[in-house]
Amino acid sequence: MGARQPTRDSLPRCDQRSRGARQSIWGHRWAQVRERRARQSRHRRSRGRNRRACAGAQHARVNEFALINRYFRRSPRGDSVRIGVGDDAAVVGPTPGMELVFSVDMLVEGRHFLRNTDPHRLGHKTLAVNLSDLAAMGATPRYALLAGALPDTDEAWLGEFATGFFAVADAYGVELIGGDTAKGPRNLCVTIVGEVPPGTALTRGGAKPGDDLYVSGLLGDAALALAAMQQRTTLAPDALEAARARLEEPQPRVRLGERLRGIASAAIDVSDGVTGDLAHILDASHVGAIIELASIPRSSALDGKLAGTERELALRCLLAGGDDYELCFTANP
Amino acid sequence: MGARQPTRDSLPRCDQRSRGARQSIWGHRWAQVRERRARQSRHRRSRGRNRRACAGAQHARVNEFALINRYFRRSPRGDSVRIGVGDDAAVVGPTPGMELVFSVDMLVEGRHFLRNTDPHRLGHKTLAVNLSDLAAMGATPRYALLAGALPDTDEAWLGEFATGFFAVADAYGVELIGGDTAKGPRNLCVTIVGEVPPGTALTRGGAKPGDDLYVSGLLGDAALALAAMQQRTTLAPDALEAARARLEEPQPRVRLGERLRGIASAAIDVSDGVTGDLAHILDASHVGAIIELASIPRSSALDGKLAGTERELALRCLLAGGDDYELCFTANP
Repeated sequence: MGARQPTRDSLPRCDQRSRGARQSIWGHRWAQVRERRARQSRHRRSRGRNRRACAGAQHARVNEFALINRYFRRSPRGDSVRIGVGDDAAVVGPTPGMELVFSVDMLVEGRHFLRNTDPHRLGHKTLAVNLSDLAAMGATPRYALLAGALPDTDEAWLGEFATGFFAVADAYGVELIGGDTAKGPRNLCVTIVGEVPPGTALTRGGAKPGDDLYVSGLLGDAALALAAMQQRTTLAPDALEAARARLEEPQPRVRLGERLRGIASAAIDVSDGVTGDLAHILDASHVGAIIELASIPRSSALDGKLAGTERELALRCLLAGGDDYELCFTANP
Repeated sequence: MGARQPTRDSLPRCDQRSRGARQSIWGHRWAQVRERRARQSRHRRSRGRNRRACAGAQHARVNEFALINRYFRRSPRGDSVRIGVGDDAAVVGPTPGMELVFSVDMLVEGRHFLRNTDPHRLGHKTLAVNLSDLAAMGATPRYALLAGALPDTDEAWLGEFATGFFAVADAYGVELIGGDTAKGPRNLCVTIVGEVPPGTALTRGGAKPGDDLYVSGLLGDAALALAAMQQRTTLAPDALEAARARLEEPQPRVRLGERLRGIASAAIDVSDGVTGDLAHILDASHVGAIIELASIPRSSALDGKLAGTERELALRCLLAGGDDYELCFTANP
C-alpha cells in the first residue's frame, strides 16, 4: 500500500476469529485480478468463474440485471449525470447555486392502480404523480429513481411500462439515474429530484387571509372514471375515455408550478381530493377557507351528475375523489 | 395579479367545457382564504370545512398523516434542510462544489425479510442496506426518503421500526427528508442521497490486471443465519445470534468507503453474494479474477460447516448467500 497505507483507526470492524489469510491490515485480500482473455463471452466467463469458485453458486439476480439493462438503462441526455444506472449508486453534478427538491411516491396495485391498467399508461402515471409534487413546489425536474416489485417477468408489460415512463421523462427533461427491482406484489416507487433557485420553493404554509384560491384545471374526472370502471356509475363512451385519460395519464403542472414562483403564496398538488389537500394548506398556513361549490371547475360530464340523482357520488368525486394532479394554490388578489 | 400577471402561454392545459367561474386567466379562482377563528381545534376545523363543502367528503388519508407526524417527522439536525417532511417535497441546500450520489433499494416481505422480523432490526436494515450502496461509492451520507406499504396500522410495530431506522440515521448523519405510506403488502423503499468531492466516487469499472481484491469483513454469516432460521441447518445459540445480527442488523461500511476514495480502483457492496457482485466489477472493468477459496474470510461457525457434511450449504452461503453488506474492492498492491 506504500504511502497510502491507512492508519490503524481506518480498520473496518472485523471478526478476529476469521481464519482468512489477512495479507493487508485493511480488509482481507483474497484474490487477484487477472486480465481477461480476449473474446470470451459473458456466458462462458460466468460459467468459468463459477466452476472454479463453487459449483453451486448461482447468479440469482441475473434476470433483474438483464431487465434493467434492456428497458431502463439509457445513455444520459445531459452532461450533469456523471454515473447513471448500473453502478451501486448514481453520481450527478447539481447546478451550482440551486436548492434541491426531493419527493417520493409509492403506487400499490389494487390501491393506486388496477391490476389490468394498461402498462404504458401506468408507466406514464408512475412518473407523472411525482412530477406533480415537484410542480407544487415550483421546482424544475431533473432526476428520478425507480424501484419496482413485480410478481413476474412479463417482458411485454415491462417494455410498455418503460415506454410510458420515458415518454413523460423526456417531456419534462427527467433523467432516470437509478433503480431497483424485486419479485413481489406489484408496487412502484419513484423518487424525484428537482431544483429551485434558493428560497423560491412554494410551500403549503404561506396562505394569508384575503388571498384567493385557485385550481389549475378540472377536478373530479379521475375519480369519476374510476367509479365508471367499477360499475358504480355510467358514462357516455367519449366522456369515459376523457375521464379515464385523466385517471391514467395525468398531466403534471410542472410549467405552471415554475411560473408560480414568486406569485403563489401557498401551493399543493391535488392528489387525495381537494378538500383534504386544501386542508393541508390551511393547517400549515393557520387560516381557514370557504369553498364556493358552484365555482369549482369540473367537466360537463361531472356537472351533469351533480344536477341529477347521482349528486352524492359526483360531490365525492369533485371534492374528495383524488388523482386529480392539478395544482391548488393561493395568491394575493 | 398586477405586474406579475403571467403571459398567455403560461396557461395550463384546461378543458374549456368547464362551467367553473374563471375569474383569472390563469387557473380557476373558486374560493377565498379566510382568517381562522382562534382556538379552533384541528378536529372541529375539519368537521366545519367538510360540513360546508360536502357532507360525504372524507379525509381518507388522515391516518397516514397522523402516523407520519408521530413517527417520522423530526426537526432536521442540520441547517442544510430548508423544508423537511410534511410538504409536497423536501428542499435542501447541498454542499457547494460536491457531487451528489443517489441510490434506491426496495425490501419486500417474504423476499428480503421474514414476516416476523423484529421491527427495530428491520428499521435498522432498511436504512443500512442503502448506506452500504453509498459506502461502495465512497460517498458521505446526507439524506434519505422512506416509502412504505404496510398491511395494517400497527403503531407498536411502527414505533419500533422508526426507532431502529433513526438509530442508524443518527449514527451516520442521515436526515430523513421525505416519505410516503400506503396500504398494501409490506414493502419498504429507501432512497439515499450522499455527497462526494467531484470525480472521487468509487465505481465498479476501475479494476486493473494485477490489482489485489479485498473484502471488508466476514462473508456468509447472514445467509447461514437465514438457513438456520429456516431449519435448513443448525447453529449453536451464540453462533446463531451472531449470524442473525449480521442478517438483521448489517453494519454498512460507510467510513471505510470514504477512506477508500483515491485508494480503491473499483468497489462494490456485497449484497447478492460475492461471486455475483464481484462479477459486476469484473464485467465493468473488463478483467477476470481467480478466487482463492481458502482466503475468503468467514466466521468459525461457517468454517466448521465448510469442513463437514454441510459443505455445499456452507459454500453457497459464503459465495452466493447475499446480505453480507461488506465492501469488495480492488487496489494496486
